[in-house]
Amino acid sequence: MDTTAMFSLTYGLFVAGVAEGGKKNACIINTAVQATAEPVRMHVTMLKENLTTQLIRKKGSLTVSVLSLDCPLELIGSFGMRSGREVNKFDGIDYQTDGNGNPYLDKNTVAYMSLNVASVIDLESHYLFICDVVEAEKTQKGQPMSYGDYRTLKSGGTVGKEGAKAGKKHWVCSVCHYVYDGKIPFEELPDDWTCPVCQKPKSVFILED
Amino acid sequence: MDTTAMFSLTYGLFVAGVAEGGKKNACIINTAVQATAEPVRMHVTMLKENLTTQLIRKKGSLTVSVLSLDCPLELIGSFGMRSGREVNKFDGIDYQTDGNGNPYLDKNTVAYMSLNVASVIDLESHYLFICDVVEAEKTQKGQPMSYGDYRTLKSGGTVGKEGAKAGKKHWVCSVCHYVYDGKIPFEELPDDWTCPVCQKPKSVFILED
Repeated sequence: MDTTAMFSLTYGLFVAGVAEGGKKNACIINTAVQATAEPVRMHVTMLKENLTTQLIRKKGSLTVSVLSLDCPLELIGSFGMRSGREVNKFDGIDYQTDGNGNPYLDKNTVAYMSLNVASVIDLESHYLFICDVVEAEKTQKGQPMSYGDYRTLKSGGTVGKEGAKAGKKHWVCSVCHYVYDGKIPFEELPDDWTCPVCQKPKSVFILED
Repeated sequence: MDTTAMFSLTYGLFVAGVAEGGKKNACIINTAVQATAEPVRMHVTMLKENLTTQLIRKKGSLTVSVLSLDCPLELIGSFGMRSGREVNKFDGIDYQTDGNGNPYLDKNTVAYMSLNVASVIDLESHYLFICDVVEAEKTQKGQPMSYGDYRTLKSGGTVGKEGAKAGKKHWVCSVCHYVYDGKIPFEELPDDWTCPVCQKPKSVFILED
């Protein structure tokens, strides 16, 4: 088995934040994905020994801030490369607080989600938190940074992403994220038309910028 | 809650494959991530109603093929936009078979993994399969396609990724994937040096192309 083959999996780059017992803390995570659309749920995998993970276990909630492609690498380093046991990671950082009192970043991000932990799966070295999404908002315009983007930027490379139709509105399935690109204008499709990927009805589509 | 904020999460793009009871089938998935490094485990989230999902439940194993950035969009469409209940998705497709007899793609991919299902978490519309990785190999040179890349390409855009130091060997933590970039050559670091991200010992680092 070539374990470096595992490096080809794609991840995002996020800050998981929590405030519990007077302590605010956060760390960098790369595995935060949507689990289901109805209800809106996410799951997050986190190293047990991290202080942030332990505070989330106590609190039962967390935030996920989605870092933007133009996020300074120093910011990522300040959340990822040191422990909240030794420093206050929020010193000098602009942040907001969600309905649970947990901190999230509204700068250098494109969105944040506020999560309530519904169940915890024990994966030996990690916990898998299955969570209800109770808030989700866009923060700033821009593109999210992937973990691959971060590695490329960190080694001095460049990352270019350009959508030819960027800025054009499009109809997207709110369940599976399929983007409608048929020749017939979306509005003129019959009412019994269904998403070709997940077979959900036309009514679940939303017009996205 | 703005559910379109959920679209900012980053995903890969994979083909999940299985052969069970004389039927070979596969579908496109975007949530396949590494769960733990020791043991090497992944978890995969799949829509219950997909035929592939139902065959995986019976068989207890699957393959994950990691699609490459230059994978033809038609190939993705042929696995993602129709059901194996109506067609044989492997007609005219080059594939290989893993140790469990499950099909995977060695063309238009950068890697594949062979997974044994260790446990199944019921997420209402989806199953979350927690799996032991029993095979993992690189297939072809190139970069993986992310779900965001796919959406950009599908709307006529371009995706450029260039690592300034591409091709240069580097030391990477096999546990958390941190890439060493300090001034001291890696080989000269003291034996008690630990990964600044996950605190694992120097010995878990591997030299990657």
